[in-house]
Amino acid sequence: MTSVKLPDGSVKEFEEQVTVKDVAKSIGRSLAKATLWAEVDDQPVKLDYEIPAGAEVSMKLITKTREGTPSDEALSTLRHSCAHVMARAVMRIKDKCQLAFGPALENGFYYDIKCEPPLTEDDFPAIEKEMKRLIELDEPFERIVKERDDAIQICKDMQQEFKVEHVTEGLADDETLSFYQQGEFLDLCRGPHIPTPKTIGAFKLMSLAGAYWKGDQDREQLQRLYATAFFTQKELDAHLEALEEAKKRDHRVLGRKLGLFHIDEMVGQGLILWTPKGAFVRQQLQDFISSHLRRQGYDQVFTPHIGKLELYKTSGHFPYYQDSQYPALVDREHLAKLASEGCTCGELSNKMSDGEIEGYLLRPMNCPHHIKIYDSQQRSYRDLPIRLAEFGTVYRYEQSGEIGGLTRVRGFTQDDAHLFCTPEQVGDEVKGCLELVKTVFATMGMDDYSVRVGLRDPDSGKYVGDPENWDKAEQACREAAQWLGKPFTEEAGEAAFYGPKIDFVVKDCIGRSWQLGTVQVDYNLPVRFDLSYNGADNQAHRPVMIHRAPFGSMERFIGVLIEHFAGTFPMWLAPEQGRILTVSNKAEGYAREVQEQMKSSGLRITGDYRSEKLGAKIREGRFDLLPYLLIIGPRDAENGTVSIRDRYKGDLGAISVTEAIAMLVDEVDNKTVRKREDEDDKDDA
Amino acid sequence: MTSVKLPDGSVKEFEEQVTVKDVAKSIGRSLAKATLWAEVDDQPVKLDYEIPAGAEVSMKLITKTREGTPSDEALSTLRHSCAHVMARAVMRIKDKCQLAFGPALENGFYYDIKCEPPLTEDDFPAIEKEMKRLIELDEPFERIVKERDDAIQICKDMQQEFKVEHVTEGLADDETLSFYQQGEFLDLCRGPHIPTPKTIGAFKLMSLAGAYWKGDQDREQLQRLYATAFFTQKELDAHLEALEEAKKRDHRVLGRKLGLFHIDEMVGQGLILWTPKGAFVRQQLQDFISSHLRRQGYDQVFTPHIGKLELYKTSGHFPYYQDSQYPALVDREHLAKLASEGCTCGELSNKMSDGEIEGYLLRPMNCPHHIKIYDSQQRSYRDLPIRLAEFGTVYRYEQSGEIGGLTRVRGFTQDDAHLFCTPEQVGDEVKGCLELVKTVFATMGMDDYSVRVGLRDPDSGKYVGDPENWDKAEQACREAAQWLGKPFTEEAGEAAFYGPKIDFVVKDCIGRSWQLGTVQVDYNLPVRFDLSYNGADNQAHRPVMIHRAPFGSMERFIGVLIEHFAGTFPMWLAPEQGRILTVSNKAEGYAREVQEQMKSSGLRITGDYRSEKLGAKIREGRFDLLPYLLIIGPRDAENGTVSIRDRYKGDLGAISVTEAIAMLVDEVDNKTVRKREDEDDKDDA
Repeated sequence: MTSVKLPDGSVKEFEEQVTVKDVAKSIGRSLAKATLWAEVDDQPVKLDYEIPAGAEVSMKLITKTREGTPSDEALSTLRHSCAHVMARAVMRIKDKCQLAFGPALENGFYYDIKCEPPLTEDDFPAIEKEMKRLIELDEPFERIVKERDDAIQICKDMQQEFKVEHVTEGLADDETLSFYQQGEFLDLCRGPHIPTPKTIGAFKLMSLAGAYWKGDQDREQLQRLYATAFFTQKELDAHLEALEEAKKRDHRVLGRKLGLFHIDEMVGQGLILWTPKGAFVRQQLQDFISSHLRRQGYDQVFTPHIGKLELYKTSGHFPYYQDSQYPALVDREHLAKLASEGCTCGELSNKMSDGEIEGYLLRPMNCPHHIKIYDSQQRSYRDLPIRLAEFGTVYRYEQSGEIGGLTRVRGFTQDDAHLFCTPEQVGDEVKGCLELVKTVFATMGMDDYSVRVGLRDPDSGKYVGDPENWDKAEQACREAAQWLGKPFTEEAGEAAFYGPKIDFVVKDCIGRSWQLGTVQVDYNLPVRFDLSYNGADNQAHRPVMIHRAPFGSMERFIGVLIEHFAGTFPMWLAPEQGRILTVSNKAEGYAREVQEQMKSSGLRITGDYRSEKLGAKIREGRFDLLPYLLIIGPRDAENGTVSIRDRYKGDLGAISVTEAIAMLVDEVDNKTVRKREDEDDKDDA
Repeated sequence: MTSVKLPDGSVKEFEEQVTVKDVAKSIGRSLAKATLWAEVDDQPVKLDYEIPAGAEVSMKLITKTREGTPSDEALSTLRHSCAHVMARAVMRIKDKCQLAFGPALENGFYYDIKCEPPLTEDDFPAIEKEMKRLIELDEPFERIVKERDDAIQICKDMQQEFKVEHVTEGLADDETLSFYQQGEFLDLCRGPHIPTPKTIGAFKLMSLAGAYWKGDQDREQLQRLYATAFFTQKELDAHLEALEEAKKRDHRVLGRKLGLFHIDEMVGQGLILWTPKGAFVRQQLQDFISSHLRRQGYDQVFTPHIGKLELYKTSGHFPYYQDSQYPALVDREHLAKLASEGCTCGELSNKMSDGEIEGYLLRPMNCPHHIKIYDSQQRSYRDLPIRLAEFGTVYRYEQSGEIGGLTRVRGFTQDDAHLFCTPEQVGDEVKGCLELVKTVFATMGMDDYSVRVGLRDPDSGKYVGDPENWDKAEQACREAAQWLGKPFTEEAGEAAFYGPKIDFVVKDCIGRSWQLGTVQVDYNLPVRFDLSYNGADNQAHRPVMIHRAPFGSMERFIGVLIEHFAGTFPMWLAPEQGRILTVSNKAEGYAREVQEQMKSSGLRITGDYRSEKLGAKIREGRFDLLPYLLIIGPRDAENGTVSIRDRYKGDLGAISVTEAIAMLVDEVDNKTVRKREDEDDKDDA
């Protein structure tokens, strides 16, 4: 009798000899089909591995996902094994190498290595060639468990100093340690691994970077060798293509090329200067959302960018979020008082952390200001819901390593609003918020998004507010998400402590996910600020707050849009919608007339009237990612025509100016988002 | 021979006996007509005063202004004399009074007095009655000069302790001192005075307030008795009426009443929270100015509200303006470093003053950020002028005593722009700025404004920039001001050190002056930031900057507008343009239809459908200062009509709804500013 214990604790028993595949089949046909390999007693084995007759083993099946692609876990194991293969190859090529760590990453893996002389990219072909050879050898990854003292001795024998230190200091509490062996290569490693390297269908070395042992600048300097691996060559090719595409779409590169924004060291890291073209896009988006806010009965407000420390102590944003805030502005009088008391900077720093100073904070959130507007007069149930909206700029001191472009910034403008309503109104108001989010995403052609409903953890008592209201609010969020008709997940324990929330994750057109807008129900701040309204019963009641931002922030959203549209905005957003190109100087007079005509129809059309060759002008226009190029030759004046070159469809030939204007204006008015898939094929310039 | 020396040093000689009037006539007929009285050898005398034959005297004529009203100097003297009369009256009524100081003010005068028991407003009639009697007595104000020691003895004899202290300590350097005597009343006083009290045509005691001797909270507490005086009763009446009017128009009172803005202690003094109605007005104004900016070829930008200290050291805003700035945000790492060095708060404070810290400033100006946008790419002469506009919020730490309402704030949003141009373009660009200012003021119905052109002081060397460019820029400003067709003054020495400027002083409809917009040419910042453009000669050239803000700031401008319009905004700005009032519940159905019809025409019309009496609803509508009340009774449904009650013209009777909508929409579209003079007379509610 062979006995197989599965991860859920259940035991399968077999009278005959069985393979891994047989065990999987005995559980289910589709599971067997999805199984890639297994771990038997922590040892990676292939599907045809025969379990010794009569043995008692534990078994874990490594499977594909439901969609048939390798699961994150399987891919991660594959990459980690490939890191071993890479390290082994490097050690075979280079005389003396010290290995540090070699983990899998979201899109690949790395190994931190110290070689003498150091590696260069010129070594890549040789390393890859050796890796291929080692994969062909197909030696299994064998798990070996050692007592701690033996493990240290093994690392010493291998002269791997980093490993010795890691076991001695980093793994001091572990009684036994595991190694994985492949031929002559032995590496201290928790595992798991793939059964044999042939499972690695395709790999590629990507780049070299600097690193420090244990990330400490005062320790040994290492080299970080980045690579990636997949189960198939096709998957690798798709990944490399997506990388290429992402590089072309990188909003930092496009932002600079198209003059959309600028970041200046003298102003500060993570602080965006919106240059005219980017500011135009932002203003268009703000106007767009403002028109929907008016439709939905929002009121606009304007509030200052600072508030007294007291305000944020009341809201709770201080001290809880203080590490992600800019330091406080300490009142001069207060600093003078501290100075006269002989206070030191160390004490000041402590007082700042404890909130024991007088001064202001650059605001990290807009809510306290909006609350103060709500609270500036007596409210009646008849006034609710009150919906206060503001394009409110907030400041957060993100770590400098995390800053970049428009998506990781220190100052950003939220398309923010706070709704104050009765508990009964929460459902309709959440639905209204989702309706707006839906409109926004649909207008941008972002149809591929999912919704996460964050609910409270039923076993935790950390939540504020009446459980009955929570039930209602959670049900309201659930119903609103259903009503939206998009895939959504309910995630228990993902609510904020102050209420349930709904997050939106958008997939852009090259398949990357971006967390954008959010809707959050809040029972906490109304209590902290002791907000109330006078009910129909003439008693004071507590309003519920809803925080919501469909774009999230203008910075992040536009960063995502730039990449989503690969720099060519839809006509209604494009700062330069088209450019008139003259074939020769003779056409200039008529061309300028056409430009004026288009401008007075509200179109943003520029003109390139230089005596350059048409080909050069077209190339420049394409380089500038303009939706349309409008070519005017000498015959167009007679015919009242213009030749249109469409970024997506290529040359549309000559049409009348009236027709052209109607076509372009129509595209603007409808906020049309056009297909992008074949844009480069049509480039006949 | 009588010899009269005039203030300009010239001497007039007369053979016959002459009066003051004769002397004035000998200089000019119109001067004689304008002369009110004179000072002969520092003694105030009337027009018919005869100069002793053969005497040598000095004479100063006190005159009316060209417009025939008393000059500020004359009015100030009158009021100071009236302060003496008031003090004398108080001392005659109250047993024991100590006098401190009694100066003239812009709109009246006060005297600081300490009485036992203290004065109350119940004493006002008796004081005024005694003052009238003293004025009737018409005893002259006689100047008496004393040696210092004698003066001290006189004050001691009068038991006026404050005067004793003032002579002993405050006037310790003076060898002789003057008193003015009127009957039994003698007061230490520099003068000048009017000849006799009958010149005081009208006076009024206004209020009592607390004060401290020499303004020092640790010294004796005094009472400040406020009053005012004029040459005629008519002038006093006009003044009191204007005060009443100003009180009714006070934007702080109206702002609260109309729900336009809110200031909250927990956010901070001088920081405006724009509540929905005020934010609406602000957004309308911003949209209005934005449309003109587009017309004039401006580019909008958005920039952050902080910048590194380095930025402001480069611009020069630090340290020169540091006292009017919020304190710096000191980087946490920097503070930790200072702490580890044992630095004290006193040393930190000094380092902050010296700019020897690392951190950020809340921006006091938008220019450095706009400069960084200009400088973010290579510019060619073909790109100029570049006009960067932003509704940019800036922060300045005004002293708390100076803060109030919207006109004295710590955070404000400028309708700011910076133009970068070649020296040759300065003239056209300044003219463009003035054209915009003209449009703005005309649209608001502010036709009464004057222009101050600030030029450099020809004798000073403090100015930066090429003198030739200065000449051109000054000439450009002068020509632009002429072109504007408004009264303007040229004021030498009033230029900024970095360039000439043009300021606008607007008179509102009750005659008060407000400094609003400004246009400034700047040769300095382009040098400090080493800005350049590539000229037609392919050489680097220095651009000229123009700073300009037609409104000045949204806060200040709207504060002035509220008072200018006395709370009833023109239709295009009014958050609530009208309100439908139903005569009875029967009319509600039709009334709601009318409201929807008006709303869909873009009008902001609310409805009051309560079962209150019409009179009460009308009173409420008038109290809310609405431009129109739209009254709907049972017969209106049959006739398709509505009765219009116009804030300015009163009851216009019933007209068709279509006609009413056309009328209101027309008023919005034309941005009509309507007459306000007789608004209260027409109130027949």
